[in-house]
Amino acid sequence: MEERTVSTTKPWTGRRISVRVDEVEREDGHLTTREIVEHPGAVAILAWDGERLAMVRQWRHATGQDLLEIPAGTLEPDEPPAETARRELAEEVALKAAHWVEGPRFYTAPGFCDELMHLFLATELSESRGESDEDEMLEPSWMTLPDALDAIDGGRIMDAKTIAGIGWLARRLRSAPA
Amino acid sequence: MEERTVSTTKPWTGRRISVRVDEVEREDGHLTTREIVEHPGAVAILAWDGERLAMVRQWRHATGQDLLEIPAGTLEPDEPPAETARRELAEEVALKAAHWVEGPRFYTAPGFCDELMHLFLATELSESRGESDEDEMLEPSWMTLPDALDAIDGGRIMDAKTIAGIGWLARRLRSAPA
Repeated sequence: MEERTVSTTKPWTGRRISVRVDEVEREDGHLTTREIVEHPGAVAILAWDGERLAMVRQWRHATGQDLLEIPAGTLEPDEPPAETARRELAEEVALKAAHWVEGPRFYTAPGFCDELMHLFLATELSESRGESDEDEMLEPSWMTLPDALDAIDGGRIMDAKTIAGIGWLARRLRSAPA
Repeated sequence: MEERTVSTTKPWTGRRISVRVDEVEREDGHLTTREIVEHPGAVAILAWDGERLAMVRQWRHATGQDLLEIPAGTLEPDEPPAETARRELAEEVALKAAHWVEGPRFYTAPGFCDELMHLFLATELSESRGESDEDEMLEPSWMTLPDALDAIDGGRIMDAKTIAGIGWLARRLRSAPA
């Protein structure tokens, strides 16, 4: 099923993302072009205090609106995802966690982008004097799991990683309540 | 919370996606740059026969592997999402549905991309003599819901729209079995 790259160009490189265009040959010999957004990868954190989940609302310029999401962020160069998760939890919601579990990983948009999202569950939370990222303006809040699931199914949570993450947490808590 | 666009450039335009770079001013006067991948939007289809879900496995060049996903596809210019969903269901898994429900919509990667994903539930399925898209090689299969949820939580389904969609279907069937 694999496609073999015949030639590759990099028509644009930005600050965080870049574009690669591969000419590929399929197993049946058919040639086609694949446009790929290269992304460093990211983390998303389910910060769970036993009753509520830490959420952030922020302006998402690409979408022209603000969105309600779980804390998340992009991997810095050579940064292990678990370290990114600790850093973002402090920066975005001023929390630290004594207990971490690594959840499933998934691709946000595999049709055209290599971004791999690493999900983490953070529990035994306490306050942290976080350094905030000056490039972001965030409005933190807390949400119960039933409210979060209602918000997903009612279309008030519109972020894929948040939807995927909360679904995973709900199944996990149902099978082994924390 | 809104960011006001001060200037905008389009450094690269591809066949399906393009890149826009906006200089933006935040409410506090801070200036920053947002790199945005422009995408036409897409659909994903939960084709449910009452016991199983139609799935497709395909090579995802961006990820360097093949992925198991629900049928999906990109909106053609001026194509209503419901029409895209009907077209992709026929093209990808050779099915048509007598009953359609529009599910929640979500952004796959709102930090840098405007792709809006429209979820559809398709039931009362029958075979369709579909025109396949010669740019895609797909391996269709069927999966029960418990198997699909196990595959998500076990990391064998790694596609965000598929994870989000199956979670929504599982909650819907639990509250009102089809």
